[in-house]
Amino acid sequence: MPLEIERKFLLDGFTPPPGAHAQPIEQGYIAITPDGTEVRLRSIDGAYVLGVKRGTGSLARTEVECPLSRAEFEELWPATAAARLVKTRYTVPLDTAVASVDVYAESLAGLCTAEVEFPSLEAAERFAPPSWFGPEVTGAKPYKNRTLATEGRPPQPGL
Amino acid sequence: MPLEIERKFLLDGFTPPPGAHAQPIEQGYIAITPDGTEVRLRSIDGAYVLGVKRGTGSLARTEVECPLSRAEFEELWPATAAARLVKTRYTVPLDTAVASVDVYAESLAGLCTAEVEFPSLEAAERFAPPSWFGPEVTGAKPYKNRTLATEGRPPQPGL
Repeated sequence: MPLEIERKFLLDGFTPPPGAHAQPIEQGYIAITPDGTEVRLRSIDGAYVLGVKRGTGSLARTEVECPLSRAEFEELWPATAAARLVKTRYTVPLDTAVASVDVYAESLAGLCTAEVEFPSLEAAERFAPPSWFGPEVTGAKPYKNRTLATEGRPPQPGL
Repeated sequence: MPLEIERKFLLDGFTPPPGAHAQPIEQGYIAITPDGTEVRLRSIDGAYVLGVKRGTGSLARTEVECPLSRAEFEELWPATAAARLVKTRYTVPLDTAVASVDVYAESLAGLCTAEVEFPSLEAAERFAPPSWFGPEVTGAKPYKNRTLATEGRPPQPGL
């Protein structure tokens, strides 16, 4: 199963390049346990997914994802009432990697982040962020999606 | 998706009929949320399942189940450390329904229950339990699997 190795950066706004692929994402958390396990529902571009993430490490986490039918998603969605967020994801090719740029909406409007996933820890450490990336927030709790969903946008940009 | 309509009874012990199908079950809870949602991992007879149950009603609950690979199950299993149970399930045909008899093991040894699932609330209400069924515990919190997994066997049989 996938072991996620990724780094995350703040962006000072984002103008999608022409023809950029935009995916509307709505996600909510059924549970966030004291040991850092997240149980998440996500609707992305008309697909529905139940995901479980374990691990509190900053760079590498394990994740299991199960596709749901729309009816299953709608049955479970009310269980996420206290922890939801809405964003649009743009997939942006970089020189040596691909960035997932998230433009948040509703109560998180104004927040933009870029996540880059890597095949190895070495590749993650070697990565040189492009100039339009802002401060790195890899592993920073206030910028985790689960924190954004439950506590809203941090008062100050950066760490 | 399945809407579970079931009734549950205590048994004063259980001797499996010859040739009864026995399924070893190991299950653990990743999360049990304040609104009654359960996120459960189950290994049953060599199959691995992630399940989410919503609803705190006694008779009817909604449930979503996703098959996992063994590797996925083993990755997530540590997240259930605080809430696990082990039992053997026997499938026993009755006159008008089928009972799932659970014989609990390890710290719950000595506990036996029978659950019967119904196609409708009417069928559930019409059901006449056979004489070898003990007190009904449908909806009784001490006999829910999640309670048994976290708090152990209730001190007294019955409600």
